[in-house]
Amino acid sequence: MEKLTIVKVGGKIVEEEGSLKQLLADFNHISGNKILVHGGGRSATTLAEKLGMVTTIVEGRRITDQSMLDVVTMVYGGLVNKKIVAGLQGLGCNAAGFTGADMGIIRSIKRPVREIDYGFVGDVVNVNTRELCLLMQQGVSPVIAPITHNGKGLLLNTNADTIASELAIAFCEHYHVYLVYCFEKDGVLANPEDESSVIYELNQTMYNEYKASGTIAAGMIPKLDNAFRALQGGVAEVLIINAKNLTRPAAKGTVIRRE
Amino acid sequence: MEKLTIVKVGGKIVEEEGSLKQLLADFNHISGNKILVHGGGRSATTLAEKLGMVTTIVEGRRITDQSMLDVVTMVYGGLVNKKIVAGLQGLGCNAAGFTGADMGIIRSIKRPVREIDYGFVGDVVNVNTRELCLLMQQGVSPVIAPITHNGKGLLLNTNADTIASELAIAFCEHYHVYLVYCFEKDGVLANPEDESSVIYELNQTMYNEYKASGTIAAGMIPKLDNAFRALQGGVAEVLIINAKNLTRPAAKGTVIRRE
Repeated sequence: MEKLTIVKVGGKIVEEEGSLKQLLADFNHISGNKILVHGGGRSATTLAEKLGMVTTIVEGRRITDQSMLDVVTMVYGGLVNKKIVAGLQGLGCNAAGFTGADMGIIRSIKRPVREIDYGFVGDVVNVNTRELCLLMQQGVSPVIAPITHNGKGLLLNTNADTIASELAIAFCEHYHVYLVYCFEKDGVLANPEDESSVIYELNQTMYNEYKASGTIAAGMIPKLDNAFRALQGGVAEVLIINAKNLTRPAAKGTVIRRE
Repeated sequence: MEKLTIVKVGGKIVEEEGSLKQLLADFNHISGNKILVHGGGRSATTLAEKLGMVTTIVEGRRITDQSMLDVVTMVYGGLVNKKIVAGLQGLGCNAAGFTGADMGIIRSIKRPVREIDYGFVGDVVNVNTRELCLLMQQGVSPVIAPITHNGKGLLLNTNADTIASELAIAFCEHYHVYLVYCFEKDGVLANPEDESSVIYELNQTMYNEYKASGTIAAGMIPKLDNAFRALQGGVAEVLIINAKNLTRPAAKGTVIRRE
């Protein structure tokens, strides 16, 4: 099986000119098949603000009414995605941007209302890898925006970390998949206040212990849940690293391991 | 050679819920290979207005500074494109949305400043059909937003009528291409005030005469120039019709003919 590297990069990195430029150069240097999954939350919040809309985030998830759905569709699917694509094309990387609606890549269902009504937020139910495999065979590198669809005409806002792990699992059928979560810290920290407290290796047992003791910051929990889910789903390796270390394998981040 | 139908649809039609729904149903009913090229100018102007920006249109072309480029990238590449894609997917049509930057489909150069500085507006220099041909062989219907790139990382705003005709010409190498311009009138009118004055057939000689006599509305000239350019470039037939007649071949519009 060929290798496929799926890189998820957080909003902050793709939204700043300097860090975006570095990221694109690094992504371009990854050899073989590769997919970039990006966020864009900060830009969405900025645009919403300019339009007089209030952004509400509950447990790391954006409450998405119809106007907010339009905003995230514009920002994730349009502005951020196409800037990345144009940037990569400029470096000679044959990038193509997609949302989960395009070619039915990611179908989701609108999250059922329980205590909280998240609005137009989608939970992934199906991933279609067919056309993306074909494009990658032609040297195309897909760039995926965190928007999905319900297959009935409705776009849905979907967490980018989750999209990355669901894509990673689905591609295991065809590739030896490496999943890399890039953000602005050096890895998962044992102490959120101390940048040097990186946990270099993490397995499910250790993770459960860290979670129980409150060692790992609450904001990291969904990302780590996604990471372990990907590993259980057949992904060869999950890394959580600083974006600036993407092409520096010697630099240490957090490796998520099976027991 | 197989048949390929390229449909260009104006902003007004894709921006209103009812006419968009009808258009997508009609587009879905076109048999064989098909590409939809869309505008979105009205939505771009509305968003710009909400953001406190002034829209300036000169000779039918939008002056595009950096902020306006962001707006059109968001609106054309994000909001309008992805709504169309999700709508088509909901009808069972395997649509995929692209700008000209994706897979390097359309490369352009920033329009040189002469009397007017259009800003980030691109004139098409190259069309890459390779990956789109492959996707169409798999039953995918591309949906193209009127944004191109210069191949050096810069996105550029590009007229959708021109994109449709440039794509049509480029695909002539692989397909028997039909180009259909859909808008909200029944065809090219001899008298802009009289909806029943449709010119049913138009060749270059007649067009030159109509132009010289001022019979055809100024706003139609760029569209017709594109239509004749496509015909000269090898396109089998160019139609200018009312969007609601897209799947009603008996309904008459304007057929652009060779001499």
